[in-house]
Amino acid sequence: MSAVDLPADSPYGLQHLPYGVFSTSGEAPRVGVRVGDAVLDLAPVAAADGLPVSGALAQPTLNAFLASGREQWSDVRDWLVDLLAQDASAELVGAHLLPLADVTLHLPFEVADYVDFYASEHHATNVGRIFRPDGNALTPNWKHLPIGYHGRAGTVVVSGTDVVRPTGQRKTPAEATPTFGPSIRLDIEAEVGFVVGTPTALGERVGVDAFDEHVFGVVLLNDWSARDIQAWEYVPLGPFLGKSFATSVSAWVTPVAALAAARSPLAPQDPQPLEYLRGSGSDSLFGLELAIEVELNGQVVSRPPYRTMYWSPAQMLAHLTVNGASLRTGDLFASGTVSGTERDERGSFLELTWNGAEPVELADCSTRGFLEDGDTVVLRATAPAVGGGRLALGEVRGTIRPAR
Amino acid sequence: MSAVDLPADSPYGLQHLPYGVFSTSGEAPRVGVRVGDAVLDLAPVAAADGLPVSGALAQPTLNAFLASGREQWSDVRDWLVDLLAQDASAELVGAHLLPLADVTLHLPFEVADYVDFYASEHHATNVGRIFRPDGNALTPNWKHLPIGYHGRAGTVVVSGTDVVRPTGQRKTPAEATPTFGPSIRLDIEAEVGFVVGTPTALGERVGVDAFDEHVFGVVLLNDWSARDIQAWEYVPLGPFLGKSFATSVSAWVTPVAALAAARSPLAPQDPQPLEYLRGSGSDSLFGLELAIEVELNGQVVSRPPYRTMYWSPAQMLAHLTVNGASLRTGDLFASGTVSGTERDERGSFLELTWNGAEPVELADCSTRGFLEDGDTVVLRATAPAVGGGRLALGEVRGTIRPAR
Repeated sequence: MSAVDLPADSPYGLQHLPYGVFSTSGEAPRVGVRVGDAVLDLAPVAAADGLPVSGALAQPTLNAFLASGREQWSDVRDWLVDLLAQDASAELVGAHLLPLADVTLHLPFEVADYVDFYASEHHATNVGRIFRPDGNALTPNWKHLPIGYHGRAGTVVVSGTDVVRPTGQRKTPAEATPTFGPSIRLDIEAEVGFVVGTPTALGERVGVDAFDEHVFGVVLLNDWSARDIQAWEYVPLGPFLGKSFATSVSAWVTPVAALAAARSPLAPQDPQPLEYLRGSGSDSLFGLELAIEVELNGQVVSRPPYRTMYWSPAQMLAHLTVNGASLRTGDLFASGTVSGTERDERGSFLELTWNGAEPVELADCSTRGFLEDGDTVVLRATAPAVGGGRLALGEVRGTIRPAR
Repeated sequence: MSAVDLPADSPYGLQHLPYGVFSTSGEAPRVGVRVGDAVLDLAPVAAADGLPVSGALAQPTLNAFLASGREQWSDVRDWLVDLLAQDASAELVGAHLLPLADVTLHLPFEVADYVDFYASEHHATNVGRIFRPDGNALTPNWKHLPIGYHGRAGTVVVSGTDVVRPTGQRKTPAEATPTFGPSIRLDIEAEVGFVVGTPTALGERVGVDAFDEHVFGVVLLNDWSARDIQAWEYVPLGPFLGKSFATSVSAWVTPVAALAAARSPLAPQDPQPLEYLRGSGSDSLFGLELAIEVELNGQVVSRPPYRTMYWSPAQMLAHLTVNGASLRTGDLFASGTVSGTERDERGSFLELTWNGAEPVELADCSTRGFLEDGDTVVLRATAPAVGGGRLALGEVRGTIRPAR
C-alpha cells in the first residue's frame, strides 16, 4: 500500500522524483515533484508536515531549495519517499496531486551563468573533420582539458517554448562578402545539463571529488545552433549569436541522487590529465548511463549514448573552478553535444547529415539537411534507476517558427 | 546658491550625478548618488519629496531603478538636479549626504549576462600580430560585425576588490605538454562597459537607433586576463578560464544622459556594414570622447582614447540582439580593450610590452612585462560634461594577490 498508485515500471516512480516549477490557472508558480503523470504541489504538503523548507518550495523557482544544500536535498528526498510510500499519507497527498495535463510548466530555475562544454570526443572529431578538413580533427588542447565557453543565461527557455529561426550574418567561403537573413542551417545539439545548487566563494576551487556537494541535478538540454551564423562569427572568440537565441532545457530536474545507479566507469583517458582533473578514487570520475533519443517530427533519428563521453561531469566542474571562478546557485553547465561512434548516434544534424551533404530521410519521404520551419524536435533520455527499472529525464521539446 | 557646495570644476558636479550602491556600518546597502566627495542617500530624500521611485532606490542593487525605464531615469535626474541646485533643499540634502570616506561601496547592479566585444581595430590588430604573426592581423569577419562573446557574470566584482592570481593550464608552443600553476602572464584590459536597463522580449531586435531606450549608463571595466591560460585554451571556442576569474567594474554608473556632450562622430567604416548596423541618421552611430588612463602602482603607463574605437556601442547592442536574443535588466556589455594608434595608448600589457618582449619601465627602475603580486592597477577616465568642464567616470582599482 502506498499514498499513490503507480505502475511498477513507471519512469516517474518513487525512485525518480524530479523537481520542477508549475502553475495552475490564476495561481502563482511554485515547486512541484513529478509522480507518474501528476505533479505534487510540494509546499502545502511540506507545511502540513511542519517542514521548514516549505517556504523555499513555495517560490517561483527552485533556486531557494537548490541553495539549501546537499543535506537538505537528501532529507527532503527521504521525507518524500516515505510520504509517498505510506498509505496513511494518501489523503494529504491526494489533495495536492494535480494531473500534468492541468498545469503549466515553467523554467525550473533561474539560470545564473551558463557554460557549455565540448566533452564528446566523437562529436569534436566530427566537427573538426567537417570544419577543418585539412587539419587535425581535434585541437591540441582537447585531450588535456574539457573545453568550454560561456553561453547566454538569459535565453535559456523551458521545454515546449517555440524557437524562432534566428536572423543574422553568414558568409560561405565562396562568397566575397557576408549576406543577411534567416539562418539556413538551423540545428540542434543534444546535451545533458548539470544544475549547481551549493555556491562557492570567489577564489575557491571545487575538486573532482566534490561534485555531489555542489551539483543538485540534471536536465536534458537542446543547444539550438545556427551553423551558418556560427561558422562566420566564431573565429577568434568563439560562438556567440549562432547559439544565443535559445537553449531549451527540460521542465524537470532529476536529482543527482536518483542517478546513483546510472553512474558508469569513465573510459581511460590518454594522455592522463593533470592532477586537478584526476580525482582521488575510481568513483570520482564517472560517466552516466543515459540513453538519449533525438526525435524529429515523431521519428527517432538518433540515439546518442551518454556513456561514451570523454570527460566526466566532475572534471568539467573542477576545470570550471580551477582558476578560482565562483559558483552561484542556478549555474548551469552542459556537456556539449553527445555523439557516439555510429552515424545514428550523433547528437546534431551537422553530424547526422555531414553538414547537409547526406540528408536524413524521414518516414514521409521528405529529407532534412537542417531544420525547416514547423519541424518539432524532442529529446528524451532514460537511465537505470536505483532498485531496477529505468527512469526518464524530462523531455525537451521545441518547434521551429519562421524568422520574423 | 544651492543645496550643496561644490567647486565649479568638480568632476562629480550636477552635470554628472552617477549612481552606485553603498552601505554604512550596520545598515543595508542602498542606492546613492555621488555628489562631489559625498554620497547622497537617495531613498529617504525621494520619499520625503513623495517620489514613488523611492522604493526602488532603497534596494541593495540598482536593478529595480534600471528596470523603471528611460522616462523614469530622466525624471529622477531632473528632480535631482533641481533638488541639489536649490538653496531651499539644503537641510533635507544635508541630512542625507555622507562623506565617501564613511561608506562602503558595493557592486552597483546585479549582472544578468555579460558580453565582451572586441571593438578596437588597433587592439585587434595588435593582438592578431602578436598571436598570428604569419596571418592577417584581422580575421575576415572583423570589419563586418562587432565580434563578441559571453563572459562570466558571476565574477564581475566592484572596484577595490583584490584579484587573486588565477591558476590553470598553460602550454607554450615549445613545450610538449601543458603545465599547471599560477598564471605568469597576468594582464589587464582597459574597457568601457554599458549597463542595460530596459529589457526586451525573446525574438525582439534592438535597432541602432534604440540605444538610449535600453542603455542606462556606463562603467569603467577591467577585464583581467591570464594570457598564458587564454592562449592554450581559446581555440576553438574562445576565452574561458583566462578571463572568468574576475572582471572589475567601477562602483559608479554614469548615466548615458550625463555623456551627451561626450558623443563624438564615428570614423567612417569601410566596408560599409550591413543595413542593421547602419542606423537612420548621423546621430545613431556615435563614438565617445572618453580619455582613459591606466595607472600601475601610481604611475600612468597608458592613455587609451575611446574615440578611436571602430564600432559604436549602438552597433554592439544591435548586433547582440539581431538574432532575437532578449535583453535583461542588468545585462552588461563591454567594448573590449581600448587601444589607440600609439604605444602609450594601448589598453593592455600584452600590447604595451608586445607580449612581454618590450617591458614597461617604472619610476622605481623596475620593469613589467605582465603583472606581479602586489601590483595595483587603477583605470580612470574623463569626458566632456554638458555645459563645459569634464566629468570623471568612477575609477576601477584592483590589487594582485598571490595565487592560493
